[in-house]
Amino acid sequence: MKLHWSPSSPFVRKVMICAHEMGVADRIEKIYSRVRFGSGNPEVTRDNPLGKIPTLILDNGETLFDSDVICEYLDSLHSGPKLFPGELTQRMAALRWHALGNGLLDVLIVWRNERLRPDGQRSTELMNAFGLKNQHALALMEKEADAIAGAPFNIGHVGLICALGYLDFRFADVAWRAKHPKLAAWFQVMSERPSVKATLPPGSLSDLAPTNS
Amino acid sequence: MKLHWSPSSPFVRKVMICAHEMGVADRIEKIYSRVRFGSGNPEVTRDNPLGKIPTLILDNGETLFDSDVICEYLDSLHSGPKLFPGELTQRMAALRWHALGNGLLDVLIVWRNERLRPDGQRSTELMNAFGLKNQHALALMEKEADAIAGAPFNIGHVGLICALGYLDFRFADVAWRAKHPKLAAWFQVMSERPSVKATLPPGSLSDLAPTNS
Repeated sequence: MKLHWSPSSPFVRKVMICAHEMGVADRIEKIYSRVRFGSGNPEVTRDNPLGKIPTLILDNGETLFDSDVICEYLDSLHSGPKLFPGELTQRMAALRWHALGNGLLDVLIVWRNERLRPDGQRSTELMNAFGLKNQHALALMEKEADAIAGAPFNIGHVGLICALGYLDFRFADVAWRAKHPKLAAWFQVMSERPSVKATLPPGSLSDLAPTNS
Repeated sequence: MKLHWSPSSPFVRKVMICAHEMGVADRIEKIYSRVRFGSGNPEVTRDNPLGKIPTLILDNGETLFDSDVICEYLDSLHSGPKLFPGELTQRMAALRWHALGNGLLDVLIVWRNERLRPDGQRSTELMNAFGLKNQHALALMEKEADAIAGAPFNIGHVGLICALGYLDFRFADVAWRAKHPKLAAWFQVMSERPSVKATLPPGSLSDLAPTNS
């Protein structure tokens, strides 16, 4: 399998954390594919018309996207504990946390793109709205931190880790840990997982912070 | 169950098409909840920190989001043919088409928001990039139209219907049918399904176009 990949994409990271957890990372050949919000990469577009990464190319030439679909596919390739639970209640809890992490990532990415616009093209209304959504999402994660910490590791945890890791990577100024101590403690534990360590974005806060171990 | 709902949201429509197909639509109490990209709706935010619709509130008070998770949950509530296939190859094909429809919707929504910005805040680079992604996505759908038309109705079809319906609703100027005849023929057949008719956005093109029946 080949994967359109970049070390700084949080959605690529989700796939790679899954791949490491599932023991299939060495079956994936990474193709370094840079994409930007406002411009296409022809090699990526050929395999995914939306021009987004991650995009997976199977050995038979078929393509899979988006990150959610790729993660569920990878989960079918191994016989270990599944990251997508089969039992309904557990599955819905996992997918809901995953959607919370994914949804926060979507907010953070449009927020960052708004920040990067030239002077005069930036919308204060949107910047404020994105900041509020970030606050609300973090507040819910903190509220549910005990349940999150108590559940067997699943795709929901991967989604949350990628969102919080992206906050560290691109929004150090948000300093999310101060108001969310239970979430921060859980994230610290997660940061020790080999899959999480192996997929740190370059130069992110987590990369620099001292560990508790 | 209660659903934060609006007749113009394509992601709400996805849930409601599923609900009609699955025979569970009458178990859902719709709460008319208006949300905008740049401002929150406190009632929605209370149930979903990301402030997005659809959001489902179960009878026990638990909440489910986003639309993907809600659709998969609804699929567990009935004993008819499942919209989320169980067999891996069929499931991946369905989820990939669903991701293609969802991904196009994401593009269309940011494209529309860009169009609606005040003069001077609009980015020509982004407008062009979104238009190209739309073209590429439609081209792939046209290329795969025979396979799409040949597969048993599934969540992938629902995703594609919602994206094409949103093009009719908000991007009549794109006039997508002319260059995508096989896709247009398939969409015409789909437009006859009661679930699709029952969920037409107000005043959309499909609502006005003569049917072939």
